[in-house]
Amino acid sequence: MGDLALGRRLMDRLEMLAHFSDDPDGLTRLYLSASHKRAADVLAGWMHEAGLTVHLDAVGTLIGRYEGAAPGARALLVGSHIDTVRQAGKYDGALGVLAALTAVEALSQAGERLPFAIEAIAFGDEEGVRFPSTLRGSRALAGTLDAASLDERDTTGTSVREALAAFGTDPTRLAEAAYPREAALGFVEVHIEQGPVLERRGQSVGVVTAINGARRFSVVVEGAAGHAGTSPMNMRRDSLAAASEMILAIEGIAAEARDVVATVGVIEARPGAVNVIPGETRFTIDARAPDDTARDAAVERIERAIEAIAARRGLAVRVSQTHAAPATACNPKLIAKLDAAVRSAGHEPVHLPSGAGHDAMAVAALCPVAMLFVRCAGGISHHPTESIALEDADAAVRVLLRFLRTYRP
Amino acid sequence: MGDLALGRRLMDRLEMLAHFSDDPDGLTRLYLSASHKRAADVLAGWMHEAGLTVHLDAVGTLIGRYEGAAPGARALLVGSHIDTVRQAGKYDGALGVLAALTAVEALSQAGERLPFAIEAIAFGDEEGVRFPSTLRGSRALAGTLDAASLDERDTTGTSVREALAAFGTDPTRLAEAAYPREAALGFVEVHIEQGPVLERRGQSVGVVTAINGARRFSVVVEGAAGHAGTSPMNMRRDSLAAASEMILAIEGIAAEARDVVATVGVIEARPGAVNVIPGETRFTIDARAPDDTARDAAVERIERAIEAIAARRGLAVRVSQTHAAPATACNPKLIAKLDAAVRSAGHEPVHLPSGAGHDAMAVAALCPVAMLFVRCAGGISHHPTESIALEDADAAVRVLLRFLRTYRP
Repeated sequence: MGDLALGRRLMDRLEMLAHFSDDPDGLTRLYLSASHKRAADVLAGWMHEAGLTVHLDAVGTLIGRYEGAAPGARALLVGSHIDTVRQAGKYDGALGVLAALTAVEALSQAGERLPFAIEAIAFGDEEGVRFPSTLRGSRALAGTLDAASLDERDTTGTSVREALAAFGTDPTRLAEAAYPREAALGFVEVHIEQGPVLERRGQSVGVVTAINGARRFSVVVEGAAGHAGTSPMNMRRDSLAAASEMILAIEGIAAEARDVVATVGVIEARPGAVNVIPGETRFTIDARAPDDTARDAAVERIERAIEAIAARRGLAVRVSQTHAAPATACNPKLIAKLDAAVRSAGHEPVHLPSGAGHDAMAVAALCPVAMLFVRCAGGISHHPTESIALEDADAAVRVLLRFLRTYRP
Repeated sequence: MGDLALGRRLMDRLEMLAHFSDDPDGLTRLYLSASHKRAADVLAGWMHEAGLTVHLDAVGTLIGRYEGAAPGARALLVGSHIDTVRQAGKYDGALGVLAALTAVEALSQAGERLPFAIEAIAFGDEEGVRFPSTLRGSRALAGTLDAASLDERDTTGTSVREALAAFGTDPTRLAEAAYPREAALGFVEVHIEQGPVLERRGQSVGVVTAINGARRFSVVVEGAAGHAGTSPMNMRRDSLAAASEMILAIEGIAAEARDVVATVGVIEARPGAVNVIPGETRFTIDARAPDDTARDAAVERIERAIEAIAARRGLAVRVSQTHAAPATACNPKLIAKLDAAVRSAGHEPVHLPSGAGHDAMAVAALCPVAMLFVRCAGGISHHPTESIALEDADAAVRVLLRFLRTYRP
């Protein structure tokens, strides 16, 4: 099979699935929308054809089971999500779902039964665009989804519960969506990298070490507003100049720490006039790392640097945490098996953290997790120009297939 | 007169004039408004009482002439403006007008006639709040105001021309407002500093060396947007981090140059989301100095620094000039006479540039100009908390009076 046949099959299905959109002028497939329903129906048909036993759970997750050598065996879960952001690309989520299907289909067509079952999974609520909270599919599977979360409403006033009923599931059966802990061997998610590392390294795929934890902060720097013409430079308490120094400190501290990233994405200087020294500047910090200790150490250095800069310039500063989530480590045994599969497929097993969140974070509450990243052009995601190469799609399916064939519970 | 009587008289009149406002909850006296008209009427009454011959010109400037020893002598012009910003303080503009009146009144009451006439002037259009352009009073006096400027309209659609007619002047007689060049000896403007220098130096008054010229720029830094989690620090082209480095360079270059100030007052990072690396950042620069050569040298260093930072970080940058006005030098002879008056009134003659614009800039097209700055609390202006001390008001009138008594054409 040096003919890219698996990759072609995967790419063809990615193209087909991309037709199911809420918006005729682009790909927008929100959780529990009509296009989500149609995509799930088509996917269920493909799973059925591939010899899987298909089931839609209470929160709209589609699961196709491929039995192992012995019926009722414990299962390895493989998949990702089929919802998208607005004006999305074709690969974020769908790649992992269809890579799982393509690999299992290859086993099924060859009549190979493994010493464990495989369940190919298509979660429906990963992007968090429609309702306030997200990851309902993977949290329900892990048994950590509170039923109260189904009372959330979208901007039109429709609740998750109402949308589930319209989708064709019974939201009162939420508890049944929880996967039996003893039956889950692990979860493997294939996903586009959404970053530039594999492209820079010249690699088709990479093995994820951990899904970064994130902490977010809002920073308010209070100086003194003043006339841009009448305040000599040495008598100013310019909040924006101070904030600029802080932003460079944040950049420098993150760059020095291994695998830590820190970003200032939002800034506002007040009053915001060309001839007025900004009296108050506000900005955000988003700090992430695959290791919470490393991230927290960087955050502490950042906080100390911010305070030192404010003190030296005679300004007041407040740093408030607005969000905190711990990192999710991928399972060392699964990582080692993925490494071996990558190597035996003729690739170099590059390790990298995942900067973005994924369903695997939620599934980690149920069983060991692992992720295989696939190179995407320019590191671009969440955009219509998101793209992957046929060769890389093929490599992803081959690595996954090798992994499945060599994995032993 | 060590009894602060002149200062008290000035402060009392400043309080009275502050009652004339378009807004009952603060001081807002826009050009050609009803409150401008009432303030001008009251001021005309005070001028008349003080023995001045009063005249309202075609653009609403009130002029009171105090004859010299010989009738029809050339005149020294002394004054400032009586329009204000919205929610203004009581001193910006009015101080200079009423200091002139108070000084001339003292001469008049003592029966002192000088070898030149004095004209106390109250311009009406210095703040530029109501109509797009400004300085109509001082430009008309200098003979540089184009009649087309009277066609500008305020936000309610009223033209300057219509507002002038309602104010009681004849806008078709604009040309008559031009002061005969041979009759103007010079213009002296007393004004609050609007900055912190005199307060820091512990001085009541200061002598202005020049009114700063200003150049303004808009800067667009183009990097690459990216996911805050998935882009390692060393693979980013973060436009906000680059802009931060540029802002610090601007601050440092201005601080190193004598009397140059440079301010970044507006900044916008796009797309402006907590978890997205800013792909494009825009900011403004306002650079001023009393000397155009020094300012232009600083601007050139700033431009080179911006380009170097962008090049080093692999980003594109565009710097566009949006405004340029040359500096207005104060007249050395008038400065020397003001210095002597300051010294003989028992103060130290501090020299400082004016960072803000003033009517004197426009009058400089007619005759030599000079300015006397008065300390204001905290350097604050354009705000209801704007304030000056009685002692400093008294010092300003005394210095002006000494100047008038010793000035010789």
